[in-house]
Amino acid sequence: MKFYKKKYDIIVIGAGHAGCEAAFAASRMGCEVLLLTIDLDKVAAMPCSPSIGGMAKGQLVKEIDALGGVMAKISDASAIQYHTLNTRKGPAVQSTRTQNDKNRYQQIMKSTLEKDERIDLKQAMVEELVIENKAVQGVVDKTGFGFSAPIVILATGTFLQGRVHIGSRSFDAGRAGEFAAMGLARSLGDHGFTLGRMKTGTPPRIHKRSIDFSEFNRQESDENPTPFSYATPRVTRPMLCSYMGNTNMTTHDLVRQNLKYSALYGGFIKGQSARYCPSFEDKIVKFPDRESHQVILEHEGLETNEIYASGLGNSLPLEVQIDIVRSVKGLESAEIMRPAYAIEYGYVNPQQLYPTLESKEVQGLFMAGQINGTSGYEEAAAQGMWAGINAGCKVQQRPAFILDRSQAYMGVMVDDLVTRGTREPYRMFTSRAEYRLLLREDNADLRLAEKGFDLGLVDKNSLERTREIQCATHREISRIRQTIVKPTAAVNQWLESAGSTPLTTGAKLDQLLKRAQLNYSTVDHIAAPEIPVTPRVKRQVEVELKYEGYIARQVREIKKFKDMEKIKIPSDLDYKEVHGLSNEMREKLLKIMPESLGQASRIDGMTPAALSVIMVGISALRRSSHS
Amino acid sequence: MKFYKKKYDIIVIGAGHAGCEAAFAASRMGCEVLLLTIDLDKVAAMPCSPSIGGMAKGQLVKEIDALGGVMAKISDASAIQYHTLNTRKGPAVQSTRTQNDKNRYQQIMKSTLEKDERIDLKQAMVEELVIENKAVQGVVDKTGFGFSAPIVILATGTFLQGRVHIGSRSFDAGRAGEFAAMGLARSLGDHGFTLGRMKTGTPPRIHKRSIDFSEFNRQESDENPTPFSYATPRVTRPMLCSYMGNTNMTTHDLVRQNLKYSALYGGFIKGQSARYCPSFEDKIVKFPDRESHQVILEHEGLETNEIYASGLGNSLPLEVQIDIVRSVKGLESAEIMRPAYAIEYGYVNPQQLYPTLESKEVQGLFMAGQINGTSGYEEAAAQGMWAGINAGCKVQQRPAFILDRSQAYMGVMVDDLVTRGTREPYRMFTSRAEYRLLLREDNADLRLAEKGFDLGLVDKNSLERTREIQCATHREISRIRQTIVKPTAAVNQWLESAGSTPLTTGAKLDQLLKRAQLNYSTVDHIAAPEIPVTPRVKRQVEVELKYEGYIARQVREIKKFKDMEKIKIPSDLDYKEVHGLSNEMREKLLKIMPESLGQASRIDGMTPAALSVIMVGISALRRSSHS
Repeated sequence: MKFYKKKYDIIVIGAGHAGCEAAFAASRMGCEVLLLTIDLDKVAAMPCSPSIGGMAKGQLVKEIDALGGVMAKISDASAIQYHTLNTRKGPAVQSTRTQNDKNRYQQIMKSTLEKDERIDLKQAMVEELVIENKAVQGVVDKTGFGFSAPIVILATGTFLQGRVHIGSRSFDAGRAGEFAAMGLARSLGDHGFTLGRMKTGTPPRIHKRSIDFSEFNRQESDENPTPFSYATPRVTRPMLCSYMGNTNMTTHDLVRQNLKYSALYGGFIKGQSARYCPSFEDKIVKFPDRESHQVILEHEGLETNEIYASGLGNSLPLEVQIDIVRSVKGLESAEIMRPAYAIEYGYVNPQQLYPTLESKEVQGLFMAGQINGTSGYEEAAAQGMWAGINAGCKVQQRPAFILDRSQAYMGVMVDDLVTRGTREPYRMFTSRAEYRLLLREDNADLRLAEKGFDLGLVDKNSLERTREIQCATHREISRIRQTIVKPTAAVNQWLESAGSTPLTTGAKLDQLLKRAQLNYSTVDHIAAPEIPVTPRVKRQVEVELKYEGYIARQVREIKKFKDMEKIKIPSDLDYKEVHGLSNEMREKLLKIMPESLGQASRIDGMTPAALSVIMVGISALRRSSHS
Repeated sequence: MKFYKKKYDIIVIGAGHAGCEAAFAASRMGCEVLLLTIDLDKVAAMPCSPSIGGMAKGQLVKEIDALGGVMAKISDASAIQYHTLNTRKGPAVQSTRTQNDKNRYQQIMKSTLEKDERIDLKQAMVEELVIENKAVQGVVDKTGFGFSAPIVILATGTFLQGRVHIGSRSFDAGRAGEFAAMGLARSLGDHGFTLGRMKTGTPPRIHKRSIDFSEFNRQESDENPTPFSYATPRVTRPMLCSYMGNTNMTTHDLVRQNLKYSALYGGFIKGQSARYCPSFEDKIVKFPDRESHQVILEHEGLETNEIYASGLGNSLPLEVQIDIVRSVKGLESAEIMRPAYAIEYGYVNPQQLYPTLESKEVQGLFMAGQINGTSGYEEAAAQGMWAGINAGCKVQQRPAFILDRSQAYMGVMVDDLVTRGTREPYRMFTSRAEYRLLLREDNADLRLAEKGFDLGLVDKNSLERTREIQCATHREISRIRQTIVKPTAAVNQWLESAGSTPLTTGAKLDQLLKRAQLNYSTVDHIAAPEIPVTPRVKRQVEVELKYEGYIARQVREIKKFKDMEKIKIPSDLDYKEVHGLSNEMREKLLKIMPESLGQASRIDGMTPAALSVIMVGISALRRSSHS
C-alpha cells in the first residue's frame, strides 16, 4: 500500500454540505485538510430541494454563519428567492428560507474550496479506513492509494451503502446516477460499527414548458429581503417566484390503487423513513381523510427549465408517477425529466459518538450529517462545522468546542443525537429547542461571533461589527428604560394612530414598547435617539424589550439547566457498581456514557430516582478519589 | 412492461456531443425526439480536454455549424481562449481551436436542449433495446419503463461496458465517477452485435495554486479572434492564456521504471489505444530517444482552479502519477485533483453500418460517436448530426443525406468508417481528406448552408447571409479578373513596400494577387472596389484566387471520383456469383455491401482487377433485370 507523502491534520470524506463546512472550519483554525469526494463535479450538490433554510433550519444556517461558516454566504450568492417564514409570529420562530440556483451554489462552493490555501480538494472514492489500536490513521481509496491523518471526518450523506428504489426495482447508488460507497461501509463494519438503514427520497423534476402555471398561485420572493449571512450587505439580484397548487382525490386514489407497487409500501425498503418529510404515499396512508395536499413548484436554477415538484416525492414505478403527477391540476401534460425515487442508506447510531461527534469506538474518527441519522442540508452543514471545529481543537490540543442546549440549535441537535439517538431521519424543529426564545435568527451573531472569533473562524472586522451592534443595542435599551414619556397631545395622537390606548399619565418608554401594537417606530416618533440607530439595532431593541419577561424566565430556567450540566460524571464511574439502576437504564448509560448529570437526565426513559442514584454514585466516587 | 404513451419519432441514447447534435438536427427537421441520459447534470460534459476544434476537427465544427448545428455557437458562448492553428500554412490546413469553460459549455447546452420544443430531455439509464423482426421499436430503462420509437440513435460514448483503469485496479464506470452502461451492452449482444474494445484516457487535473507558472511559456489567446460559428458576430469577452512546458529524462525514467505497473503496459487493458492521441507511457515506449515531450497546462474554466495537464495522460498507479507530474519543471509541488486514468469501452464495428449510420443488422438503429470507434468531441458531434439528419430523413421518408468525400470532412469520416472500419480510435486529420483544399474552414458555410436549409436546419436569414457572401465573392473575383494594373510609380512603390517585384508592364490584378507576398490589401491599395467588401469576402477572394490552380486540379479529380461514385452497385448483386474475386475480398464485400463502385474502391485491399470484375457483375445484373 502506497501512502501520500504529505501528512494531513484532517481528512474529510465527502464534499456535501457537511463535508464542506467541516473542511472550511478546520482549515480556518489552521489545520491542513484533505477533502475527498467521489465526483468533483458534484461538490455541494443539492440532490433534493433547491433551497436552504426554513423553519429552525434557518436558525442553524445563521448559527453556522455567526461562527464563520460559508453556507449562508453562498446561499446569498446563489439565491433566486427569499422568504421569511412566520413573520406574523414571534421572533423565536421566524426563519429565513432561500431558493437557490443549484448549479451556482455548487460552482461557488467548489471555487471557494479551491481558493482555500489549507484545503486540498481531490477526487477519490474511499474504500477503507486505516485504523490501528482503535485510532484512525488514514484512508485508502479505490485505486489502492492511501492518505494519512490522525483524524478522519465521515460525511458520507446517502452514499454509504446507498440503494435507490423506484417501484420494485432497486440498484446500488449514492444518489441517482452516482456510485454508492460500498467499500467504506464494509470497512466500517470491519471495525465494529453496526450500520442501521434509513430512507429518504426526492420528488420528480418536471419540465417547465409542460406546466400550466395559470392553475397555480404565484408566491413571490420577499421584497428587500434580509440576506442570510450577516456579512452580505444586501441582495439586489432579481428573484423568481414559485407556484402553489394541490393534489386531489384522483391523485390520492391513484396512490392507493398502486400502493403495492411502491418501493416503500411494497416491502422493498427496510430503512426508516423521515416522519417529518413524508413521501407522498406516506401522506395518503397516514392522512386518509385529507382531500388534498400541497404541491409547490420551484425553479432549480436561473438557466435550467427543471422544476422541483415539492410534495410529490414517492417511490412508485415511473408509469404510476406519470399518472399521479398528471392528475394534479395544471400538470396534465407534465413531462417528468427526473423521476422521483427513494434511497436507502447506511447510518451509524449517533449514541456511539461523544458530544464532539468523535466516535467512542475509534479515536480520531468523527461523523457528521446523514451518517448520524439526520436529514437536511442545514443539519448536515451544522454538524460538519461542529465536527470540523472539534477535529481542529483535537489537532491543536484545545478543549472541545461544545455549545449546550441554551446556546444554539446546533447544541440542541448534537445533544439530542448523542444522548437520545434517533431511529428516523432527525430534522431540526423550533419545538426541539426548549430555550428557543433565546436562540433566534436575529441574535445568532450576538450569541456566537465571540466564540467563532476565539476559534479563529471569525475575523476581527466581523467581530467588531457584531460588538458594535451589541453595544448600540445595550445603549439604546438603557436609554429607552430611562425615558419617561409624557402624555402630550402629540404622543397620544401617535398612539391612537397606531391603534394603541392613549396615556393619561407619564409612562416608561420600555413599557410602552411592550404593547402589542407598537414597535420601534414609536421610539423614533416619541423619543428618537440623538444619533439614529441602524435597522438591525432597532429590531434587536424591539425584540429584547418586547419579550423581556419571557426571555428572563428562560434565562432562569437555563441557570437551573446549567447547574445540572455542571455536575460532570467522571468517565471512571462504573455503572455496574451503581446500585438501584434498572438493567435497561444501566445498559443505556454504559452505551451513551453521559458527560454530565444534565446529559444523563435527557436519556430516553431516565427517571428522577435513577438520576439521584447516579448522583450518589458520583459523590461516592469523588469521596473515594479524595481519600 | 409499461411503455410511455407518447410515441416519439426518434430516441437518442446519450446526451454527449454526439447525442446532443443528433437530437437538435432531428428536432429541427420537425421530429419528436426523446433524449435520454444517465445523469442530467452531465449533459455535454467534456471529460477530457477542455477544448473544441483543432486540426481538421475545427473543420468538422465549422461544417456542423454550416449545417445548422450547435457546437460552434456554444463553443463561442463558453470560450476562454481562441487559437487559429497553422496561420502560416495554406488555408486548407488552418483550423480554429477554442478552450472552453467546461461548466458553462454544459449549462448552455442543457439549457438550449431544454428550450427546444420538440426535444424531451430525460434522465434514464437504458438497459434494453426493444427489437422486433429486425427493426427497433423502442428502449427500456433500468426501472423497467419503456419508451417507443421506430428509430433509436445510440450515442453511448465510453459508457458501453466502460471500465476505468488506474494501475492494476479497474472498475466498471462510464467515466470516472459515473455508471457504465452494462445492460445496454448485453442487449446489443443479445441482438447479434459483437462489441470490440477500445481504450482512451485522460491526463490528471492539477490545482492551479500548486503550479509554478514561471517555469512555463505563456500562450496567449488570439487577438480579435474569428468566432467559431458563422452566426456569432464577434467575441469580446476577456480570454485566458495557457502554459507550455516540457517533460525531461527524469520523467521518462520514472515511466520506464514503472511500466509494468501501468494498466496499459501491465497487461490489464485489451482495448485498442488511439495511435494519434497516445498516452504518456506510449510516447515513452514508442519514442525512446526523445529527451522531452510537451506539457500544456490549460484552464478548465473561469471559476475553477482545476488545470488540465495536456500530454500527461497515463494509466499508472496514483503514487507513480504524482512522481511523474512532479518531475516536470514547475510542477514540483503539484497537487493532483483528479488522477489520470485509462478507460476501456465497447464499440461496434462501423462496417456494420450503412453510410447513413443506420445499422445493417437492425432497421432504425443508428449509431454515432465513440460507439463507432471514433475519438474526439468533434468527430462525435459530426456523426451525431449526421445520424440525426438521416434519422429525420427516414422518419419523413426523404432520401438519405450523404455528403461525399469531396463535399465535407464529415463525408470523409463517415465513408472511412463504414467502408474501411477502424481498429483504433479514429481521429480526423486533414491528411484523410484528399480534397482538403476544397474542404476549408473558410468555406464550410458556402459548401453546406444550402443543404442545411433544404433539410430545414438552417433558417432563411442565415442562408441569405451566406448567399450574399457567395455573390459578393463572385462579383469581386470577376471584377479583379477584369482589372488591369498599370505600372505607375504609386503601384510599384506599393509592390516594393510589400516586398514584391515592381511591374514593368501592365498586369492583371488576379495574377498579381497570386504572388506569395501579396494579399487582398494590395487590391484595396491599387484598385479598391467602389463599394468596399467585408473582411470575410476579402479573405474568400484571396483564397480562391491565390489557390485557383490547385483548386481547379482538385475539381478535376473530384469529377473522376464522382464518376466512380455514380456507378451504383445494386443491393441485389450477389457477390457469391461474381467470379474472379478472392474469398477474402468476397467476404469484405458481403460485409460492407458498398453502395457504389467508388465506395468499393476504398475497401482495404481492393485491387483494380477486383473492381473490374465487380463492374462486370453490375453490367450482367443490369442486363438480366432489363431482359
